[in-house]
Amino acid sequence: MMRARVACSGAIHEAYPDPRGVRLADGRLYREEDVVWLAPFDLGTIFALGLNYAEHAKELQFSKQEEPLVFLKGSGAVIGHRGVTRRPADVTFMHYECELAVVIGRHAKDVSRDDAMSYVAGYTIANDYAIRDYLENYYRPNLRVKNRDGGTVLGPWFVDASDVADVTQLELRTFVNGTLHQHGNTRDLVTDIPALIEYLSSFMTLAPGDVILTGTPEGVVNVNAGDEVVCEIDGLGRLVNTIGTDADFGRA
Amino acid sequence: MMRARVACSGAIHEAYPDPRGVRLADGRLYREEDVVWLAPFDLGTIFALGLNYAEHAKELQFSKQEEPLVFLKGSGAVIGHRGVTRRPADVTFMHYECELAVVIGRHAKDVSRDDAMSYVAGYTIANDYAIRDYLENYYRPNLRVKNRDGGTVLGPWFVDASDVADVTQLELRTFVNGTLHQHGNTRDLVTDIPALIEYLSSFMTLAPGDVILTGTPEGVVNVNAGDEVVCEIDGLGRLVNTIGTDADFGRA
Repeated sequence: MMRARVACSGAIHEAYPDPRGVRLADGRLYREEDVVWLAPFDLGTIFALGLNYAEHAKELQFSKQEEPLVFLKGSGAVIGHRGVTRRPADVTFMHYECELAVVIGRHAKDVSRDDAMSYVAGYTIANDYAIRDYLENYYRPNLRVKNRDGGTVLGPWFVDASDVADVTQLELRTFVNGTLHQHGNTRDLVTDIPALIEYLSSFMTLAPGDVILTGTPEGVVNVNAGDEVVCEIDGLGRLVNTIGTDADFGRA
Repeated sequence: MMRARVACSGAIHEAYPDPRGVRLADGRLYREEDVVWLAPFDLGTIFALGLNYAEHAKELQFSKQEEPLVFLKGSGAVIGHRGVTRRPADVTFMHYECELAVVIGRHAKDVSRDDAMSYVAGYTIANDYAIRDYLENYYRPNLRVKNRDGGTVLGPWFVDASDVADVTQLELRTFVNGTLHQHGNTRDLVTDIPALIEYLSSFMTLAPGDVILTGTPEGVVNVNAGDEVVCEIDGLGRLVNTIGTDADFGRA
């Protein structure tokens, strides 16, 4: 099943895909643009992978890491589908990052990679923007690079794990203003999902709602105010958002 | 005012200091050891400072950073007063870190250091353990160092900002099994509280419940299973916890 969380008519609702837009649990239909799309599930801790596609690591001129490079994100960074992400006027390079997001379904501690997939509740799409100006080195998930307000777009749908036929063979695509710029496949993950769950759960407990952003493939380009960025993953839908200026956020 | 959140008799309660232990809002009295102490406020995003006391940076053989070294912590790392923190058998060096924790009271964006203190709701004590084995370099807040289950002890009290006379002159002390090992003063913070709020709010929004662990002074030593660690800060109380073995957590 695919489900979203949307705000409309004074409340937050679970919503489902419909050819005409989105349908609420009570049957009401809305056009996609007439609701506010929120992150599609209750967020726990947000883990993000750096350099988890070898070609992207090359693109950033970093060598491959010895073990998974995982950092945390704050909940304030998250917005939903169709939200606006701010591009500060004083930076020179801001890029999108289309990522498969893995949502944990039950508490996981000391889980082997063989059992790991049974701890996955489902998936969504993440577009995890980076302000590359402040990227000093691959060890530092500098908050100015990766923890801006609205810099992590999640959605539109939470898709049950059982509805994804083969998560190791999903195409990822990012379009800026309709032009394809990023194209990858989850088969190229350096550390795959079972190994990530094994690694993280070896020293801490993963909890329901925790989400792992599995990293982005090569093909990142600078985005500018006014751009529309669409991240697509096979079977998960299309995550759309736009880039705003400082002025859009009430500051000249 | 000083207040805690404790679990007892099937529910979570706000609790206040009493000479005989803790007192609930409804007047019931409990001995300190007869309740479960939780983090004393609803946690938002947890920010932690690395190397924010110059003498501690020297102790770790790192040079002073150019700008505040801030990383995030997951909520799963947090336990309250009197909780047990696990020392894995396969590590060689685990140390405590007594820190002043600053709790944000209202949304803060682009706040100048002159106004910053009006965004502070109050304070508590943090003991933010580190597994130094995995500390590769100062850029890397490796999750294996700093995001273990129960590795961040918070409490016992949330203390209103207005009840702390001068937050720039608070003594911090850590005792292991009754012996004083760490002793510092908030006057030696490299980046002080107003500057930290100015820095973080310059690129993201701080929210009520967000907490900033301001770093630890010098004097960290290895702790072992069975140790009792007490972190004390002037006017904020005494945060006590003990170190457990893998076996205490159900694993041989």
